[in-house]
Amino acid sequence: MPRLSERTADLRASPVRAMLEASQRPEVISFAGGLPDFESFADLALPPPPRELLQYGPTEGERDLREAIAGELAAIGLPCPPERILLLSGSQQGIDLAAKLVVDRGTGVAVESPSYLAALQVFRFFGADFRLMRRDDPAKGWSQDPPAIAYVTPTFQNPTGECWTAAERARLAAACDAHDVILFEDDPYRDLAYEPCDRQPACAQVRRASWIYQSSFSKTVAPGLRLGFLAASEDLFTPLTRLKQASDLHSNRLSQWTVLQYLKDPGRPARVARIVAGYKRKRDLFAAALEKHLGGLADWQVPPGGLFFWVTLRNGVKPQALLDLALPRGVLFTPGEHFLAEEGESPAIRLNFSAADPADAERGLAILGGLLRGMATAPAVTGV
Amino acid sequence: MPRLSERTADLRASPVRAMLEASQRPEVISFAGGLPDFESFADLALPPPPRELLQYGPTEGERDLREAIAGELAAIGLPCPPERILLLSGSQQGIDLAAKLVVDRGTGVAVESPSYLAALQVFRFFGADFRLMRRDDPAKGWSQDPPAIAYVTPTFQNPTGECWTAAERARLAAACDAHDVILFEDDPYRDLAYEPCDRQPACAQVRRASWIYQSSFSKTVAPGLRLGFLAASEDLFTPLTRLKQASDLHSNRLSQWTVLQYLKDPGRPARVARIVAGYKRKRDLFAAALEKHLGGLADWQVPPGGLFFWVTLRNGVKPQALLDLALPRGVLFTPGEHFLAEEGESPAIRLNFSAADPADAERGLAILGGLLRGMATAPAVTGV
Repeated sequence: MPRLSERTADLRASPVRAMLEASQRPEVISFAGGLPDFESFADLALPPPPRELLQYGPTEGERDLREAIAGELAAIGLPCPPERILLLSGSQQGIDLAAKLVVDRGTGVAVESPSYLAALQVFRFFGADFRLMRRDDPAKGWSQDPPAIAYVTPTFQNPTGECWTAAERARLAAACDAHDVILFEDDPYRDLAYEPCDRQPACAQVRRASWIYQSSFSKTVAPGLRLGFLAASEDLFTPLTRLKQASDLHSNRLSQWTVLQYLKDPGRPARVARIVAGYKRKRDLFAAALEKHLGGLADWQVPPGGLFFWVTLRNGVKPQALLDLALPRGVLFTPGEHFLAEEGESPAIRLNFSAADPADAERGLAILGGLLRGMATAPAVTGV
Repeated sequence: MPRLSERTADLRASPVRAMLEASQRPEVISFAGGLPDFESFADLALPPPPRELLQYGPTEGERDLREAIAGELAAIGLPCPPERILLLSGSQQGIDLAAKLVVDRGTGVAVESPSYLAALQVFRFFGADFRLMRRDDPAKGWSQDPPAIAYVTPTFQNPTGECWTAAERARLAAACDAHDVILFEDDPYRDLAYEPCDRQPACAQVRRASWIYQSSFSKTVAPGLRLGFLAASEDLFTPLTRLKQASDLHSNRLSQWTVLQYLKDPGRPARVARIVAGYKRKRDLFAAALEKHLGGLADWQVPPGGLFFWVTLRNGVKPQALLDLALPRGVLFTPGEHFLAEEGESPAIRLNFSAADPADAERGLAILGGLLRGMATAPAVTGV
């Protein structure tokens, strides 16, 4: 037997990966992943890139793209010089880099639970000791034993879809300042806003603490480009860049160029508005179909942004039991327990509304509704 | 102060990264990096990719590309099914994944010294305890205390340019079999062969041990695409794929498509032959210029393949002292000590011959020769 590292003992099968695979089967109606609507990039301009970009490039990313991103960040209230912008091979990489930078076995990592499952997976892999955090009192317990880092997705949280208030963001930033906790803010959904809400980055309110802010071009440009970026406080930027270099030297230069063309395109605001309007329409149709087919069987809030409904099943129905019945009928979703930082069960499921077309989505929800009705009236089975 | 992981204490500045940066200054003649010649991809076809590749894709990579790579591996004597091919965001990522899979603090990692510096850096970061390995007796000491993994670049080793004999490859494979050591073979330069030599992968001769074989599309296609691949024994493939998913979900799909077009192109053998002939010509011109300007001042072998000369300075000249004089005159190279797995000094320097054009290369070598002549005759300075 090969001798593997201790950390591989925690290497669970990734639910995200299994979902990406199953969701590629054309007959499946998948509410499981977070796939953007194909229509959102069907018209993306893909002009041929300059050939000099075929050579190796700088680890941090292309200078002109870093400048454009710095301009974007200033516009959302997080001024940061281009010198502290690092391009990423997708924002998943930013989580890997942050975990490498901070997390040893036993390092305290503050998270909400539920949280983004692939972030939990990476932190767990590096040995994180998760500290569950509540928005109304984020620093609870930090005086005695502060975590090293707090990982949050305040804008359209994955999986719940919730958007933190300005007061909640300020409270977390103050808590990080007071207890010297690194604030790591993951913000991939911020452009996908269907209702007015506070979206200023929590990192913008940090005064003393170290911070990492990251976002993605997967949602409003295209995920296949595998491009995201991070901005960081000065003390963390150089080690993060070195970790990036050791991970993959630098990000794809052709993708960087494609994204730069997108950022410079004067038609971009109209393009984003069109994408957001398309998603809002899908969300509203999905909410209506949910009400029609799952009304009385589950509870949910209509999310103000992002790509997911977080739906709590009534009547003690177990999400995995529902999935076991739904998958043979060609419907896929993610059971809530995968988003938990602690061991335990969740009565919730996460439903993505962006990938399926509205008619398929309604058909899939009708199947789930029928199954739930049957499960609610069937006598509970106990024992083996 | 933020609380960072123990492993960041080992986070040295990356010489590769610093070199990539300095080598972008147009006035510098850089022998330091491993940049392919721009001419080698100046005519690469870059047709617009199909739009469906803008969506998320599978972690392992595109099915048709994995099949094409499996065909390539069979042709070089390493049969491996497509199901055990994993696309990488450049082969640097394969080193990161292998280290994550195997290396805890204190894990034994067998390497030649000198070895590829960015591999040493990653293994060191995860806590490797390096065991220096000699080709004529690779298993020395393994009976008492075997390493978990042996990392080698048998074909045109970086930095020395040497090519292992078939017997040396067989000996290492047998040693790994006998002592249950994972064989990790890094093979980015195999196509750049200027003399006949044994190039069958050492992994092809493994009978029992676990193994990882990786290569890159950076040298014969283009580095800016950031694409490589690995093949692995069955027991390691699934955990490596999970680690890849946690690192960046999947590799750039547009690059995968571009590389597939290249692999399917009937003009490819002629294209590779032309690239190799171009590099051979550069190598020969470089060897002649070395003889002219550094003859009597240093020793080297003309490499049978790859992109580097490994040049040992005579007269006790320190590579760093030479670099301190050369850089203000616009000449950059890599001191040999960066390639050492152990602490210590090296009298050698690594000179890349592929990036600079022949006239610049000759000018740069003339500068180095002049400096070396001055240093050889100057009285040695001791003390502060």
